[in-house]
Amino acid sequence: MDHKRIIGIMGPGEGAATSDKEVAFELGKSLAGMNCYILTGGRATGVMEAAMKGAKSAGGTTIGILPTEDGSHQSEYVDIPIKTGMGSARNNINVLTADVVVGIGIGPGTTSEIVLAMKAKKPIILLNQTNETLRFFLNFNYQSLYQTNSVKETIETIRQII
Amino acid sequence: MDHKRIIGIMGPGEGAATSDKEVAFELGKSLAGMNCYILTGGRATGVMEAAMKGAKSAGGTTIGILPTEDGSHQSEYVDIPIKTGMGSARNNINVLTADVVVGIGIGPGTTSEIVLAMKAKKPIILLNQTNETLRFFLNFNYQSLYQTNSVKETIETIRQII
Amino acid sequence: MDHKRIIGIMGPGEGAATSDKEVAFELGKSLAGMNCYILTGGRATGVMEAAMKGAKSAGGTTIGILPTEDGSHQSEYVDIPIKTGMGSARNNINVLTADVVVGIGIGPGTTSEIVLAMKAKKPIILLNQTNETLRFFLNFNYQSLYQTNSVKETIETIRQII
Amino acid sequence: MDHKRIIGIMGPGEGAATSDKEVAFELGKSLAGMNCYILTGGRATGVMEAAMKGAKSAGGTTIGILPTEDGSHQSEYVDIPIKTGMGSARNNINVLTADVVVGIGIGPGTTSEIVLAMKAKKPIILLNQTNETLRFFLNFNYQSLYQTNSVKETIETIRQII
Repeated sequence: MDHKRIIGIMGPGEGAATSDKEVAFELGKSLAGMNCYILTGGRATGVMEAAMKGAKSAGGTTIGILPTEDGSHQSEYVDIPIKTGMGSARNNINVLTADVVVGIGIGPGTTSEIVLAMKAKKPIILLNQTNETLRFFLNFNYQSLYQTNSVKETIETIRQII
Repeated sequence: MDHKRIIGIMGPGEGAATSDKEVAFELGKSLAGMNCYILTGGRATGVMEAAMKGAKSAGGTTIGILPTEDGSHQSEYVDIPIKTGMGSARNNINVLTADVVVGIGIGPGTTSEIVLAMKAKKPIILLNQTNETLRFFLNFNYQSLYQTNSVKETIETIRQII
Repeated sequence: MDHKRIIGIMGPGEGAATSDKEVAFELGKSLAGMNCYILTGGRATGVMEAAMKGAKSAGGTTIGILPTEDGSHQSEYVDIPIKTGMGSARNNINVLTADVVVGIGIGPGTTSEIVLAMKAKKPIILLNQTNETLRFFLNFNYQSLYQTNSVKETIETIRQII
Repeated sequence: MDHKRIIGIMGPGEGAATSDKEVAFELGKSLAGMNCYILTGGRATGVMEAAMKGAKSAGGTTIGILPTEDGSHQSEYVDIPIKTGMGSARNNINVLTADVVVGIGIGPGTTSEIVLAMKAKKPIILLNQTNETLRFFLNFNYQSLYQTNSVKETIETIRQII
């Protein structure tokens, strides 16, 4: 009905780098004005919380796809908590539900979301990733894979895609 | 953040009775003004679509937890489509995510949602159910089970619960 | 390869009646000689454990579809533990995987499995159920629903079906 | 009861390299004599089918965790088909259920299984992987990650682990 697109922002939780959290905050904030929902894994940590905090700071609306069944570990910046009770299997719901998947930083969970997004044929943006990480994912010859090096460039890429 | 509650409205899809769809429309419409999200199974049929259509007719916001992975069968009255790709297993996400579960009409899928809501310890409201259906569910001696016979009574019960 | 069929035996866990557990034990034992796998929810309680204990007492092989991700609550009578980490959503995997679903005793979880088996179009046998329970499920006019009142009759029905 | 361990063999499906399929066949065959179950994603293609075919050639027993709900795409070399109806989300069940995860060849699905195995704290063996792939996974500093270059070395590593 409201035709808003859903932008998934994925990245490490507990071990996230400060620089990745800062970029996630800025991206969430920039997206908030773009008539879209910001979707994350919903927990109160790392890149996912930073992205939602940024979105909320600018009046955005956030969806958190939680691994728990009772909402435990939920970030206070989640507007719409989806409680899956499925643990890491919920990562597949994250990418099926998102219209675009942005990966900031890398870890096992984030990696799973990037490759599951390939299985789901979703556009993927790798933001500020190292050359080694980029090379690994580029090996799969996935068509809708974009590399960006700033929030501005990421926003432009999202605008082109959706 | 926005502290909206999520009200799940469950009921038959393709085989839904006209009277159940009418009640679901009215309930969705009445809930729209109550600062909550209306959650359903998201498909373009039956009680779930009627409830979302009612909600949208009064400016509400709807969440659809879809069984498909590509959004097929999605109702046009879904604002926030969550694509699970899990078939009927998504019924458990419906009830884990809802703060209250309302059952209008009965069928296999709706039955699964009512009993999964018991497993998840959610308040359940059975609206306009037959005596036989009520007796079946009352046998489980589930504490948070409410019976209502009108939209007005259902709204009052929801207000008491949340 | 080995063409064994998978027979699902469903029933209450913690609150199971002694008579239902006895019947489940006998059914598991009788099925053990029939070149099939006995599938249950895998936990160390109630009808599911009794059925697997019966199967093992006669040399059968058991599959337990566990709700936990680490095998906690697993019965010692499970040969093949499938760890889903999905909580009650795993009930759908139980019925999708079983070639026939037998319900002994009734509770919320068992009810979910019976109706999910209807959604999955699986043959369902209701063994020793009360008239009230039978009436509830018969209302759905589901074609492949069988009522039996003994282990012997259940085995005969399974032989006809598979 | 029978205390068999479950060895998961993961690798690409449709695009699998011939050499990876040959290694998977040999590994499945070698494991068949080791009192364990061989677990794969169950489809009739690539590394998973080759591993199960090898296991069956030597009298082993195979578990296939299928993405489909009706058993479509199932390999004929599956003894115990678990029908999840969950698409790629079933990859998490693969690794939760396996006691050891072996990755032969690389692709998006296999990558998801390797990193989900890290989340699930399972021992992981990377067999015949390229330096670039190894470097990517080694970056996560995951403790139970083993690199092997032959079926013999893999079998020895599995013996040490389980």
